[in-house]
Amino acid sequence: MKRPTMQDIARRAGVTKAAVSFALNGRPGVSEPTRRRILAIADELGWQPSSAARALSDGRSGSFGLVIDRPARTLGLEPFFMQLISGIQAELARDTTPLLLAMAEDQAAEIALYRGWWARRLVDGVFVVDLQVTDARVPVLEDLGMPAVVLGAPLGTGSLPAVWSDDAAAVATVVRHLAGLGHRRIARVAGPGHLRHTAIRTTAFERITGGLGIDGRTLEADYSGERGAAATVELLSAEPAARPTAILYDNDVMALSGLTAARGLGLAVPADLSLVAWEDSALCELVAPSLTALHRDICGYGAQAARRLREAAGGAAVPDVEDPPSSLTLRGSTGPAPDAGGRAFR
Amino acid sequence: MKRPTMQDIARRAGVTKAAVSFALNGRPGVSEPTRRRILAIADELGWQPSSAARALSDGRSGSFGLVIDRPARTLGLEPFFMQLISGIQAELARDTTPLLLAMAEDQAAEIALYRGWWARRLVDGVFVVDLQVTDARVPVLEDLGMPAVVLGAPLGTGSLPAVWSDDAAAVATVVRHLAGLGHRRIARVAGPGHLRHTAIRTTAFERITGGLGIDGRTLEADYSGERGAAATVELLSAEPAARPTAILYDNDVMALSGLTAARGLGLAVPADLSLVAWEDSALCELVAPSLTALHRDICGYGAQAARRLREAAGGAAVPDVEDPPSSLTLRGSTGPAPDAGGRAFR
Repeated sequence: MKRPTMQDIARRAGVTKAAVSFALNGRPGVSEPTRRRILAIADELGWQPSSAARALSDGRSGSFGLVIDRPARTLGLEPFFMQLISGIQAELARDTTPLLLAMAEDQAAEIALYRGWWARRLVDGVFVVDLQVTDARVPVLEDLGMPAVVLGAPLGTGSLPAVWSDDAAAVATVVRHLAGLGHRRIARVAGPGHLRHTAIRTTAFERITGGLGIDGRTLEADYSGERGAAATVELLSAEPAARPTAILYDNDVMALSGLTAARGLGLAVPADLSLVAWEDSALCELVAPSLTALHRDICGYGAQAARRLREAAGGAAVPDVEDPPSSLTLRGSTGPAPDAGGRAFR
Repeated sequence: MKRPTMQDIARRAGVTKAAVSFALNGRPGVSEPTRRRILAIADELGWQPSSAARALSDGRSGSFGLVIDRPARTLGLEPFFMQLISGIQAELARDTTPLLLAMAEDQAAEIALYRGWWARRLVDGVFVVDLQVTDARVPVLEDLGMPAVVLGAPLGTGSLPAVWSDDAAAVATVVRHLAGLGHRRIARVAGPGHLRHTAIRTTAFERITGGLGIDGRTLEADYSGERGAAATVELLSAEPAARPTAILYDNDVMALSGLTAARGLGLAVPADLSLVAWEDSALCELVAPSLTALHRDICGYGAQAARRLREAAGGAAVPDVEDPPSSLTLRGSTGPAPDAGGRAFR
C-alpha cells in the first residue's frame, strides 16, 4: 500500500501535516519557500489528491457510468457496443475520467444501479442507451436530478439531452437506392419492437415504401443470428411472385445470418436477392459477397455523447445534438432486381 | 441533488448529526429505540454510505478496474471481450461492485492509468489481460502493491495470481482430432507473437505436430479478418502436395475470413480443406458450413477471475487457479483429409 499520504510528505519535509494541507490546497499559512519545497516533495513522491477526498469536498466523483441491459450473448456478437464504448473512452481519456460499466437484467435493475451509484456518489452522470418506447429510466433520472445524456432520438426523452442521428433518413436512403435498382418488394428484418429506434425505423419504412408504391413488409426479430435466419426463411418461403427481392436487416449479425439462410434455400445473392445491413462493421467485409451496409462513425457518436455529458455534469444546459445520418456503403450484396415475378428456386 | 445526508436524517429524526453518525455506524452513544428510529428514517430516505467517505475511512474504493489495449476495431469484432466483461460483471454485481473500464494505446498508457487509479484510490485492484512475453505491467503492479489477477497462464506473472486454462492441451485436442481424420499437413494462423498465449500455443503446436510426424506450420497474424484472409491465401498458394489440408485459426474472426478466402480460391470446405476456430462464438454458427471451434465458458472464466480479485483485494494470498481446458465443438467445417497429394484447384 504505497500511496503517498500528506503524512509522508510532512515527514519528508519536516513540517506538520497541517502545513502540507495548506500548501497543497493553496491556502495561506505557510511561507512561499516552504510551499515550494512541499510541492516539490509531493511531486517527487507521486502524491495525487484522493478522489474520495475530492468527492467529499465538492460532491463530485469525476466518473461517468454506462449500463447496458442486453443479453450478453447478443451483446458480444455485435461490434456496435464495443465501438461505442471505444468512442466514449477516447473522449473521457482526455482528462482521465473513468467510465463505470455495468450490465443489467432489465430496466428495473438498471434503475436500481442508477439510484445506488448516485446515492454513493460513484458517478457524476450516465449515458442512457437503447431507449424504449415507454422508458422507465427517464422520469427516474429526472427525479434524481442525475445528469444524463440519451444516445437516441429526442422522443420521450423528457428534459434529458439526446445525441442522435436520423434513422428515418437512413431508411429513405436504403429504400430509394433499392427502388432505383428496380426492387418493388422490399422486406425489413427489425430489432425488438419495444426499442424506440426500431419503432422509428418501422414507421419510416412503411411511410417511404408506401410513398413509392413499393410492397414493404417488416418482420420483428431480436438482433440474434438465429432470429435473423428464421425471419429470412419465413420471408423467402412465400410464392416467388410475392417474395421480397431485397431485405434490409436492422443489424450486421442478422444480415450475415440472412445471407447464409438465403443460400441454404438455393438463392443467389445478389442475383436473386439483395441484402443490406444496418450498422456497418468489419463483419460485413468478412463474407463473400461482402455486405452493403448503412455506415456511420460510431466512435465519433460515442465521443460526442461524452462531451455532452461532461457539459451536463458541469451544470450546463445541453441541447439535443444531431449527428449526420448514416450513409450507404455499397458492396457485393446488392444489385438489380431479378426479372419481375422472381426466378424459381434452383 | 437529492442524495440524503446525515443532516437530512438528523433533521427528520429531531436528533443531532452526531447521534445519526453513532446510529449508522453501530457505535454506542444513542439509546436503542433512537437507533432504530434513525435507521428506519435513513432507510425511508434511501440513505447509503458515501463511497467517498468509506474510501477515506478505510482507504478502499469498492471498485475494480480493467484496461484493454487492443485496437478498437479488432476489439469490437471479437465476441471474446464482451463475454469476458459479462462474466466479470455477473460476479461483481452480486455485491454491486462497479467495474472501471478503460482502453489504452499501449502498455505504457495502461501503466499510467494504473498509477493514477491507485494514487487516487479509484480501484481496489485490476484484471490484467493479454499478458505479453515480456510484460512491463507485472513489476509495476508488484511495486505498487496493487492487488491484481492475471487472466492467462502463470508464466512471467511474478507474484500475481493467474486464472488460466491450458492452451497447450487445447492445441493437442485439435491436432489429434485432425490427425485422426487423416490430415498430415496442418497449418495455424496465429495471433500476435508478442502475446504470451500466442507463444504458448505456437510452442505446443510445434511440439505436438512434430511428435505425430505431421507437417505443422504457423503463420503470425493479428486477429483481424484482413490478416486472417491474407495468411490463408499465402498458405493455400503452395503446390497442392505442400498445401495444408487443415488450418487452425487463433480466433473466430480469422477463421471466418479464412473460410471466405478459401472459397474465393475455389476450395470446398471441408472436402478440400478443414477449418477450426479458436474461441467458439455465435459467429461460428452464422456461416455455412458452421465452424468447428474450441469452446470454453468465457463468462465463467471472467466470474472466476472476479472472485479471485475480490479475495486478493481483501488481503488473501490467492493461488493460481486453472480452469478446464477448451473442448472441441465439432461442426461442418472439418472432415476427412482429401486424397494424399491434395486435389487440384477447381
